[in-house]
Amino acid sequence: MLSVALEEARAGYAAGGVPVGAALFGADGRLLGRGHNRRVQDDDPSTHGETAAFRAAGRQSTYRGTTMATTLSPCWYCSGLILQFGISRVVVGEARTFEGHHEWLAGHGVEVAVFDDPECAELMTAFIKERPDIWNEDIGESS
Amino acid sequence: MLSVALEEARAGYAAGGVPVGAALFGADGRLLGRGHNRRVQDDDPSTHGETAAFRAAGRQSTYRGTTMATTLSPCWYCSGLILQFGISRVVVGEARTFEGHHEWLAGHGVEVAVFDDPECAELMTAFIKERPDIWNEDIGESS
Repeated sequence: MLSVALEEARAGYAAGGVPVGAALFGADGRLLGRGHNRRVQDDDPSTHGETAAFRAAGRQSTYRGTTMATTLSPCWYCSGLILQFGISRVVVGEARTFEGHHEWLAGHGVEVAVFDDPECAELMTAFIKERPDIWNEDIGESS
Repeated sequence: MLSVALEEARAGYAAGGVPVGAALFGADGRLLGRGHNRRVQDDDPSTHGETAAFRAAGRQSTYRGTTMATTLSPCWYCSGLILQFGISRVVVGEARTFEGHHEWLAGHGVEVAVFDDPECAELMTAFIKERPDIWNEDIGESS
């Protein structure tokens, strides 16, 4: 699951964008949707990796049993998405470059698996070094 | 501010969509962006009223001092958006048909003003009665 998210993150990076990718999988393991952050590419601040994958999956009657795989620990915006729609499980590539709200999610019944994948972390580390301004903008940390 | 959000909600309702509208205003009171839920119109589950207004406002270097006006109390997804990007203030049209997370937002430093506007409530009440299926889908309550 994480490899699909990582492919998305790499595609985002190649296009000069914030390299966060995500993919939503059904209860049966089938890929429902995949996508990546499009702040730079579309000038769209609302498209994080997770929201892109969620949108790409289209309307679903339920999210019970679904898994959101994401290369980076989800921010409040994406954590709220996961909780509101009842996505059952989150697979996090890394939380080294940004630490989200795993305990909050777990406390609300979401299953959270956090990896420390070096490829995910290297991609984000490179981007943050190259474009700290865009990264800070993407998480609402701009001055 | 709420009247702009209400115009958006009405436009959404007229198009057969979930009638939640929102508008983001700058620290100086200037309108930055406005929009409404587009689940039905675009088959897009990711566009709630608040995320539509946020997207329409485009990339901002900071959200300090901004106000999000919304016809309906924000769900977790939209509450997370508000918190992550540091939107300072939320003006809520009504929380009668859906009660969000005002205390959570306030506890994180967001100023929250909740009205009980009859026009906002009537619009939602009518929609929920007409299309309970779509409404439940929109808040992740589908069976």
